[in-house]
Amino acid sequence: MAGNTFGTLFAVTTFGESHGPAIGCVIDGCPPGLPLAPEDFAHDLARRATGRSRHTSQRREADAVEILSGVYQGRTTGTPIALLVRNTDARPKDYEAIAEVFRPGHADYSYWQKYGVRDPRGGGRASARETTMRVAAAVVARRWLAETHGVRIHGHLAQLGEVVPRGFDPGAVEQNPFFWPDASMVEELEAFMDRLRKSGDSVGARVTVIAEGVPPGWGEPVYGKLDAELAAALMGINAAKGVEIGAGFDSVVQLGTEHRDEITPEGFASNNAGGILGGISTGQDIVCSVAFKPTSSLRLPGRSVDVSGQPVEVVTKGRHDPCVGIRAVPICEAMVALVLMDQALRHRAQCGDVGPVAPRIPPHP
Amino acid sequence: MAGNTFGTLFAVTTFGESHGPAIGCVIDGCPPGLPLAPEDFAHDLARRATGRSRHTSQRREADAVEILSGVYQGRTTGTPIALLVRNTDARPKDYEAIAEVFRPGHADYSYWQKYGVRDPRGGGRASARETTMRVAAAVVARRWLAETHGVRIHGHLAQLGEVVPRGFDPGAVEQNPFFWPDASMVEELEAFMDRLRKSGDSVGARVTVIAEGVPPGWGEPVYGKLDAELAAALMGINAAKGVEIGAGFDSVVQLGTEHRDEITPEGFASNNAGGILGGISTGQDIVCSVAFKPTSSLRLPGRSVDVSGQPVEVVTKGRHDPCVGIRAVPICEAMVALVLMDQALRHRAQCGDVGPVAPRIPPHP
Amino acid sequence: MAGNTFGTLFAVTTFGESHGPAIGCVIDGCPPGLPLAPEDFAHDLARRATGRSRHTSQRREADAVEILSGVYQGRTTGTPIALLVRNTDARPKDYEAIAEVFRPGHADYSYWQKYGVRDPRGGGRASARETTMRVAAAVVARRWLAETHGVRIHGHLAQLGEVVPRGFDPGAVEQNPFFWPDASMVEELEAFMDRLRKSGDSVGARVTVIAEGVPPGWGEPVYGKLDAELAAALMGINAAKGVEIGAGFDSVVQLGTEHRDEITPEGFASNNAGGILGGISTGQDIVCSVAFKPTSSLRLPGRSVDVSGQPVEVVTKGRHDPCVGIRAVPICEAMVALVLMDQALRHRAQCGDVGPVAPRIPPHP
Amino acid sequence: MAGNTFGTLFAVTTFGESHGPAIGCVIDGCPPGLPLAPEDFAHDLARRATGRSRHTSQRREADAVEILSGVYQGRTTGTPIALLVRNTDARPKDYEAIAEVFRPGHADYSYWQKYGVRDPRGGGRASARETTMRVAAAVVARRWLAETHGVRIHGHLAQLGEVVPRGFDPGAVEQNPFFWPDASMVEELEAFMDRLRKSGDSVGARVTVIAEGVPPGWGEPVYGKLDAELAAALMGINAAKGVEIGAGFDSVVQLGTEHRDEITPEGFASNNAGGILGGISTGQDIVCSVAFKPTSSLRLPGRSVDVSGQPVEVVTKGRHDPCVGIRAVPICEAMVALVLMDQALRHRAQCGDVGPVAPRIPPHP
Repeated sequence: MAGNTFGTLFAVTTFGESHGPAIGCVIDGCPPGLPLAPEDFAHDLARRATGRSRHTSQRREADAVEILSGVYQGRTTGTPIALLVRNTDARPKDYEAIAEVFRPGHADYSYWQKYGVRDPRGGGRASARETTMRVAAAVVARRWLAETHGVRIHGHLAQLGEVVPRGFDPGAVEQNPFFWPDASMVEELEAFMDRLRKSGDSVGARVTVIAEGVPPGWGEPVYGKLDAELAAALMGINAAKGVEIGAGFDSVVQLGTEHRDEITPEGFASNNAGGILGGISTGQDIVCSVAFKPTSSLRLPGRSVDVSGQPVEVVTKGRHDPCVGIRAVPICEAMVALVLMDQALRHRAQCGDVGPVAPRIPPHP
Repeated sequence: MAGNTFGTLFAVTTFGESHGPAIGCVIDGCPPGLPLAPEDFAHDLARRATGRSRHTSQRREADAVEILSGVYQGRTTGTPIALLVRNTDARPKDYEAIAEVFRPGHADYSYWQKYGVRDPRGGGRASARETTMRVAAAVVARRWLAETHGVRIHGHLAQLGEVVPRGFDPGAVEQNPFFWPDASMVEELEAFMDRLRKSGDSVGARVTVIAEGVPPGWGEPVYGKLDAELAAALMGINAAKGVEIGAGFDSVVQLGTEHRDEITPEGFASNNAGGILGGISTGQDIVCSVAFKPTSSLRLPGRSVDVSGQPVEVVTKGRHDPCVGIRAVPICEAMVALVLMDQALRHRAQCGDVGPVAPRIPPHP
Repeated sequence: MAGNTFGTLFAVTTFGESHGPAIGCVIDGCPPGLPLAPEDFAHDLARRATGRSRHTSQRREADAVEILSGVYQGRTTGTPIALLVRNTDARPKDYEAIAEVFRPGHADYSYWQKYGVRDPRGGGRASARETTMRVAAAVVARRWLAETHGVRIHGHLAQLGEVVPRGFDPGAVEQNPFFWPDASMVEELEAFMDRLRKSGDSVGARVTVIAEGVPPGWGEPVYGKLDAELAAALMGINAAKGVEIGAGFDSVVQLGTEHRDEITPEGFASNNAGGILGGISTGQDIVCSVAFKPTSSLRLPGRSVDVSGQPVEVVTKGRHDPCVGIRAVPICEAMVALVLMDQALRHRAQCGDVGPVAPRIPPHP
Repeated sequence: MAGNTFGTLFAVTTFGESHGPAIGCVIDGCPPGLPLAPEDFAHDLARRATGRSRHTSQRREADAVEILSGVYQGRTTGTPIALLVRNTDARPKDYEAIAEVFRPGHADYSYWQKYGVRDPRGGGRASARETTMRVAAAVVARRWLAETHGVRIHGHLAQLGEVVPRGFDPGAVEQNPFFWPDASMVEELEAFMDRLRKSGDSVGARVTVIAEGVPPGWGEPVYGKLDAELAAALMGINAAKGVEIGAGFDSVVQLGTEHRDEITPEGFASNNAGGILGGISTGQDIVCSVAFKPTSSLRLPGRSVDVSGQPVEVVTKGRHDPCVGIRAVPICEAMVALVLMDQALRHRAQCGDVGPVAPRIPPHP
């Protein structure tokens, strides 16, 4: 498949450039009968949007979703759902100065080498603007997963540079602009981010997403493993450099007796596996973490070359996030939702004849 | 696609259970005219095989490859290449005791929940025995990549439990049973592994793979990114729990000015990106690391339940690796090769009209 | 893959309902650097459009194409090309009377059974309105095929009810509203169509498409055969009931000595194969024919049932074609173009290493 | 996808050459729990096999199926089912004389042009020997379709050259070597075939397949239509030149009032649609017909060229069918079964939430 479609059965095709006329997506394979209206997208798109606090890019997009097809009398019909979002705060002129230059740490050079041509306006297709449509498509997936299986997906920022949460309160996450699970640290983070923004530099972050309520049995061995598809989905987000499932890289130093999650009739004794064994869900929480690199768009000058190979000094103007990892939280959730949705349909296709299977082991609390 | 095929254009379908009559694969989409003979598989299969040192499982398989199709007069014809390997040291009886029990940390429970039935003989399809065919298929991919583009792929063990290499000598890697890049530490590792094996426990490991010579331009944005597909390919290996590209999780604490790889006419100034920007190769080395959990098959007893939900104590007999991460080195290389091969063909399909693109930036040495 | 994407590498995803707000498509995998502007679509969309003569449906759509993405400074960039066409002459109210009724010969009943819900406005997704986007996407494919390989694709009406062309003049086809290759018969056809329209009935037709200049070697045995994919592409057009390649059903009564196309150094002695052997192009003209059923939307009453199972008499109002086969000519050309484009890219992917192969046999004139 | 895999969810990958060591297939995505044993394949493979009467090729293959994987204790486990059939009556030397020659009407020239290399032994991969594995894979599909949905698929020869059945008795079809539905004509056919064989020539045929019991709702609009996929599946059989659904090419001369199948509460009044409307099954019989060309392998000399472009006279020795259409009957059935199986799983994936939908219209008897 060409590279702009995600998923096999719940297939999302996105299109659009950061500073082109519009972005959008087509969701194919959605089950029929699901309630859907334009206003259903507002909440999640706002969580991902720029310009909601001083700690993110100051681009302000309305992100108004138009449903072009696939919905009749407020319900999905099973035909493709096309969503359109016009770009209303595009400023292509901001990028004229760098049209002939390869910004370090950006996709400019690699696109140029691949295609022999590139759209330099804000990174064009390589911009995180595209992730708007991932979040939009995931609104549909999350609704179906919740209504049909009771699946709930929530993410939080698990590290910002060197800073890690001291406490963990799920209720705090949506109450601050950092998706931070420790309310007592928000002022500290604000001060940190203000200093960073003033310095002109950027910093990396770690995001963790947890999916609760996923039934055992989802995932396709051998090459369609649930963890493999989560890894691809999360590593495919702009600026992602690493993905972990469950204990992740910590398992390198664990012993087998530590890592293996023992089973009792009352439930799993631990969840180092992150809810997946052999590529198939176990009924425990699915736990994934993602490393995000620091934004490469900086107003501090960096060395590069231009399209004729001459050395240049690059300063990125435009509007950028000092830590892209923050807004990545809802995007990570979205990708987890899209993977689960697709796997749920694939599981039903092959194993719809298999009735409820005993015994069911409760998850580790 | 159903889950036992890997790749879009260079598509590898594997089959077979650990203790069934045979394992095998079908490689579809291979370019015609490539020299190929049964003996070409011996070297790489031996690197992956068990029973070559006391530090791996003592199962001894001949791993003799029969080419059933797709080769005529010693060259590939463009039709599917089927490879067959008979299992010669299978011992299904070893698993009778656990046929009704879910081994902790194994796929037993998740397969049971998905399919309502499972082949308990050594993990059946979930066994790493399947990876034999990944390595075999990658022999073909590596040859084409080397002959056509000069790509070379090599891996090493980058961590074994708490132990990390003190030096790095690429020439040492193939000279010891641990794929360890520091020859001076081999005795230390042997002692460590001997103690571990005697204890009955197991330990995790980290593997790093480097692909040199990959030209810029391979990879398909947005959902077929080269790093996303590497992440899936590597996370889909048995026991993998984490994947990093380039700086990986270290980028969480980096600043933008540190991480972005500056560009000079003489070459990239660093390679934090691991050779990929925007999902497309830059011409720098592709660098990936994988975390492997400690084997869950242990002769130290663990708590579990049986198929009727009753608590049991599980002791795994069979023959197992005290550190599966060691033999994972050639498997990781194989998965990187399969991803690169597929992306190379996909790139040629879409961008075969694009001639050589200037400027070319040399990789960071 | 979900059902609204056509093609593997040159992948076209369409969306939209007949009387919804818009229709559109996303073309993924297009080679970069191809010139493309909104006005390039006008000619082919006009050939397919209704309302251009009294012999087709009187719905009048502007069919103005907006390019939303994938084009920068007048050239394709290799990223997805999204095309949007607003519906401007939709009349959903025309269909209120039949919202609860299954029109005989239509997809009403089958959609209802599949989805449990349907959009009754003019057939919704099942309407031939969707084929606008196939023709639009094929504009891009045809340009690449022509510029890169000199491929030319042209169709004509080969039968209208009982009437067959007496002569064959390729130059005549575009000079009359029937795509008829014999100018001397146009008046006769007009009279026939006028009588038919007045009677309230409809009639079937046969369309033939010829692709000239296709090089030998395109097509993927065994399940991706060029003729198999053409058959799917053409049978998937609304109202199609049969597909032939080359001699088609006439080959049932042929002898082997008659049918096999002998080869001489000067060229093939005949073209019963229709340019394809073993699923791969031979360099001869690709020749396909398609049977179209008569429109089922008639103002002559027919028996049916409503959604509660009660018998009803159905009279279709709306605006309809007395012979849908006529306007199917450019749609058939489009589908042939899309198949060839995709196969061209797939061939290049696998066999790009194979140089020019001798001997080349010229096509039968 | 590369070209040797058929199906999306029930995916069958075949391999092997006509005179290579073996042929085989991998069936991925099969529902678990289905009973399966090697002897289950015997009946259908015998129906397709050569050498069972003097009217087919005299190659005699045992067609013994070995199940290599995916079955445990007599039931499918959900993992890939690999089937292997050794070629036991291969005679590669028969083809030495034509190794440098392109047989007219064969895939020799087109393979040569595509790959620059070809396996000349009996057509290699282009031989109908490959269809053995389609029939084998379909044994699994037919069993699931019958057990789960009561679907029954049966084909017959509907025309042999100019000869058409005068009567139609379903019970007669399996009682003669021609799959002919009129027992009174068998002697006539034998005489006809004897004359044809002695003449050294061959003749075309038409095969019709009917699938009874398919529930309404299977098929994926717009590009995954049930009829479109049947067309591809059937046109992809060796020697197929045309495909019809329902009234097929007869619909060209029908009026709308004739063709549309009226609906009554007692059932459909006719079945011109062949059981499919808008690409989705209606619950009526699925009816398809396929045109097969006469075999091109003849001992009557034909003109061709050799690989250096020089004119030659070709006489095919080997062992061949004077009418390939006869043995195509079980192959056509198999392809219909594979399409239905895949669509059944895809339907369940997307529309498994949709309960039984009223009203259900009985099929036309």
